[in-house]
Amino acid sequence: MPNTKTVKDYIRTIRDFPHEGIMFRDVTTLFADARGFRIAIDQMLQPYVGQRIDKVVGLEARGFILGGAIAHQLSVGFVPIRKKGKLPAAVISEEYTLEYGEATVEIHDDAIQPGEKILVVDDLLATGGTAAAGIRLIERLGGEILSCAFIIDLPDLGGRARLETMGMDVHALCAFDGF
Amino acid sequence: MPNTKTVKDYIRTIRDFPHEGIMFRDVTTLFADARGFRIAIDQMLQPYVGQRIDKVVGLEARGFILGGAIAHQLSVGFVPIRKKGKLPAAVISEEYTLEYGEATVEIHDDAIQPGEKILVVDDLLATGGTAAAGIRLIERLGGEILSCAFIIDLPDLGGRARLETMGMDVHALCAFDGF
Repeated sequence: MPNTKTVKDYIRTIRDFPHEGIMFRDVTTLFADARGFRIAIDQMLQPYVGQRIDKVVGLEARGFILGGAIAHQLSVGFVPIRKKGKLPAAVISEEYTLEYGEATVEIHDDAIQPGEKILVVDDLLATGGTAAAGIRLIERLGGEILSCAFIIDLPDLGGRARLETMGMDVHALCAFDGF
Repeated sequence: MPNTKTVKDYIRTIRDFPHEGIMFRDVTTLFADARGFRIAIDQMLQPYVGQRIDKVVGLEARGFILGGAIAHQLSVGFVPIRKKGKLPAAVISEEYTLEYGEATVEIHDDAIQPGEKILVVDDLLATGGTAAAGIRLIERLGGEILSCAFIIDLPDLGGRARLETMGMDVHALCAFDGF
């Protein structure tokens, strides 16, 4: 019998992580499964078949796993966006607001050339705060963002609407209701 | 004229990062280059052609970029080893000693099944402290480590010798003298 499990079926939900009331959508069970990881990468790339992509940008840290695989599949380069203080050379930074407090993400200032077509990847689109900050970094370097690709969308948190307001094309493989 | 740049040629050295006296070997310039990233992944896999690999384990965070690409290339699953508190489900932990203080790495306790053949990947082998802790985690779950693959070896820091003492097969694409 063929295996009909979907990407969503491989995702595990952990209650009350990282704190009470959160239903954490855990993609490690998807990544650890050979078929799951394969179909996730294949499906993330389907919307872009035949389109020019020069570089893949991944958001720390789970976006690195996906971004490495996707960049390799496309035979293009990979660029990390990291939390503050992790990148060794000259960077540009963007601050963004979290539920409690602020965070900063950075990109090397020579990592993207003006006019390069960029695919942004991460595992989860929640409020879109990190992705929006990453998009600003890429656009400040002159990169042209083709699309933002996620495995999971949490539409109740508004991230998709936020990125679309910035003019972004957004794709996700599945959605979960709630937080 | 064919491009004869080696993997090592794509690596950038940053002086005094993260603190004075350190020559930081920056692989982001390798990853950002389409040809560089491609030849790095191809060369990391060369020693294992024809050998059974069930899962790729990557060490946070640059090992995620490589591990995602390598797992995808092999059509196997990917398992992250993360810093303390990042993995949402039940974990096992290993502490190890840093230059100043201690650190802890974790793996989900169901991420590897006994007897699975594991390839461990990271960008840099320095003292080998993180890799050794990761190896202990995998072995506690019953995984059988085929090999540990790195881009860079810093032989003066003794990591290779340390892992070989643990019975590990170790491969690196290039080496740099000094610290």
